Amino acid sequence: MSEFAKLSRPELEGLQEKLRTRYRQFQTKGLTLDMTRGKPSPEQLDLANDMLALPGADHFRDDQGTDLRNYGGLDGLPAMKQIFADLISVAPEHIIVGGNSSLALMHDVILRAMLFGVPGGQGPWREISNLAFLCPCPGYDRHFAICEMLGIRMITLPMLPTGPDMDAVEQHLRDDSAIRGIWIVPKYSNPTGITCNAATVKRLAEMKAAPDFRIFWDNAYCVHDLQEPGDDLADLMQACISAGNTERPIMFASTSKISFAGSGIAAMALGPESRKQAIDLASKQTIGPDKINQWRHVQFFQDAAGVRAHMRRHAELLRPRFAAVQDVFEKELGGRGVATWTQPRGGYFVSLDVMPGCAREVVRLAGEAGVKLTAAGATYPGGQDPEDQNLRIAPSLPGAEEIKIAMEVVSVCVKLAAIGRILKTN
Amino acid sequence: MSEFAKLSRPELEGLQEKLRTRYRQFQTKGLTLDMTRGKPSPEQLDLANDMLALPGADHFRDDQGTDLRNYGGLDGLPAMKQIFADLISVAPEHIIVGGNSSLALMHDVILRAMLFGVPGGQGPWREISNLAFLCPCPGYDRHFAICEMLGIRMITLPMLPTGPDMDAVEQHLRDDSAIRGIWIVPKYSNPTGITCNAATVKRLAEMKAAPDFRIFWDNAYCVHDLQEPGDDLADLMQACISAGNTERPIMFASTSKISFAGSGIAAMALGPESRKQAIDLASKQTIGPDKINQWRHVQFFQDAAGVRAHMRRHAELLRPRFAAVQDVFEKELGGRGVATWTQPRGGYFVSLDVMPGCAREVVRLAGEAGVKLTAAGATYPGGQDPEDQNLRIAPSLPGAEEIKIAMEVVSVCVKLAAIGRILKTN
Repeated sequence: MSEFAKLSRPELEGLQEKLRTRYRQFQTKGLTLDMTRGKPSPEQLDLANDMLALPGADHFRDDQGTDLRNYGGLDGLPAMKQIFADLISVAPEHIIVGGNSSLALMHDVILRAMLFGVPGGQGPWREISNLAFLCPCPGYDRHFAICEMLGIRMITLPMLPTGPDMDAVEQHLRDDSAIRGIWIVPKYSNPTGITCNAATVKRLAEMKAAPDFRIFWDNAYCVHDLQEPGDDLADLMQACISAGNTERPIMFASTSKISFAGSGIAAMALGPESRKQAIDLASKQTIGPDKINQWRHVQFFQDAAGVRAHMRRHAELLRPRFAAVQDVFEKELGGRGVATWTQPRGGYFVSLDVMPGCAREVVRLAGEAGVKLTAAGATYPGGQDPEDQNLRIAPSLPGAEEIKIAMEVVSVCVKLAAIGRILKTN
Repeated sequence: MSEFAKLSRPELEGLQEKLRTRYRQFQTKGLTLDMTRGKPSPEQLDLANDMLALPGADHFRDDQGTDLRNYGGLDGLPAMKQIFADLISVAPEHIIVGGNSSLALMHDVILRAMLFGVPGGQGPWREISNLAFLCPCPGYDRHFAICEMLGIRMITLPMLPTGPDMDAVEQHLRDDSAIRGIWIVPKYSNPTGITCNAATVKRLAEMKAAPDFRIFWDNAYCVHDLQEPGDDLADLMQACISAGNTERPIMFASTSKISFAGSGIAAMALGPESRKQAIDLASKQTIGPDKINQWRHVQFFQDAAGVRAHMRRHAELLRPRFAAVQDVFEKELGGRGVATWTQPRGGYFVSLDVMPGCAREVVRLAGEAGVKLTAAGATYPGGQDPEDQNLRIAPSLPGAEEIKIAMEVVSVCVKLAAIGRILKTN
């Protein structure tokens, strides 16, 4: 295959005409394919259907004998804490089990930090002039939306194959005393699919930062391996403890993409002082989370090994979907010099970089052919991708055949946009 | 029975000796009775045990066909909205169904108001100098704890048999421009058991207040009648709409004391602009609440009539417990002039006013005889009852026989404290 940039104008125009024909054929098919969000497929959800009848009519006591139908248990059932502790490799005493949403835990931690500050700090974060978060990009739009809502300045920096660009992270922390947080999806990151390597984890733990600086370690895909063995993620909590920065990490996880999205269980892990503060403040918000749903999960999964076994069945369903993306992109886009894309070993996304200046156009074209993509720019703060080139592909929800068609549409749109761009700029 | 105040010193001392003997007898029994919190009894919880097997292994679609196992549904299932709408007598379009805790909804509304303000206001509440809430007392400690956490000044005023002292409410609002909220448990109030009458509701709706003033209408006991027919609560939302103060009320309810405490469903009702803002801000916090638990509730109760039928069974269990309190108090304390208490027609509490300056002593004495009471002062902001006289009795959790013993202990303690007080001050 020839790189488009090396083709002559007549060659490009010829190709454009062929692609337009294909595009119009897609348009006549009346497609309605949604590749926007990282939602589990019905087949994945089916794997947990037995949970819908749990815990069972007379099973309302956990293994400690607690009546789970009544108030209390602010930090979670011991058995549920143990499962999360094993999944994210921390001791159970770090864990707080929350409601159904790890996003809500993140949101609430930051709202409280704005109003009350966190241990180690001088006061509420809202009093910090020009308060800022580091945002490795491309990243997760819902992280950025929390910062945007609170008026927190977002400093973008590159997401490398090894994790956040640590030279940039350390440089910003040296230059800017108003930084109090960094967003990281450390394993199978959203959207690039990378896993932070050991050197990155060590630097994150050891780097100089404000005493109330926090790493928001959104370990959403901790057991979401597509291949065996899965990527290995170094132990940030232990590294921070060893470096004397015990309160630095706040780790998040949930079963939203393990059991049921929206009816799962979320948890976070914090250093001892931060955990104490979080419990104290949460005790003003609620008498406790849904313990019966925790017990339902404990009964269904039994332990972390049960979760891992369950996730191997998820992987069987996801692998052909991710393979469909790779196959079509390789066939349609390989060697053309108009796009690069990630080949994740886990998680929920493929990150597609098209020619600079083309991402919005690809989304528009695909939408008009019935394939809905995540808005261009969504992976950057404020929805503004400075190069207008990154797209997030979420191939979990549709079936492999639908994904194949959707990716063909996307590929044609990527090529059309690229040719349009080349013809215009030459 | 003679009023204690009319007895001679030798008569009082003789009585004191007899009461001390009874008290010591209680102490030898090794009682451990907990009358502190408004928790449903196991027998009440048993009534909903069939929910523990719902919705059933293959029932994951609601009556709209939505797959409830996946993300979405931020404001709740239509069927669940309809049930809450019927229970608290508002149109469903006012309703947002939240997670498992109405306290969390209240907390989050106020935290967001502090940071962002609410429709009608000039900006964030935290920028209002000397921001204040009106707190009818005795009231609910968890309401006051939210204000305390946020540094919101609390202005106490009397809770009358008709509801908050509306003369005082209107006077404070005239005198103090920093007031932005009032806490009210409008039906079977916590702890006095009163229901706001129609005149109070009308005045609350029509009174002058800041455009961003909000009534926090915690309708926790909306269907928690002990007698039939239950108290009638006038329609605050309609009254506010009629008065042109559409955004003034924020109403809260939950099934925590209907299905399972902690595993129930919470909801709130707001005016259209406030609801829009609440949805917008909540969309940054979570992708949505637990829809399967909502559907579990819809399946179990079917509709508001189903909830009401269920609550009649609760009432059968609660009536003997509340009767035990009344019987013992009447027998032990009636006519002595040392205490007054409420005779609620619903809700979860009896409010006991002992002789001024005696409440803490009663809690101490009862505790040392194995009967744990809610801390004296808990029904006032900051835990400070200016008269040290109010106690909240929560008779739902123990059985009627245990309650009888606990109330005998409390009665003896009330009399001992009163005699001690009279002897000391004479």
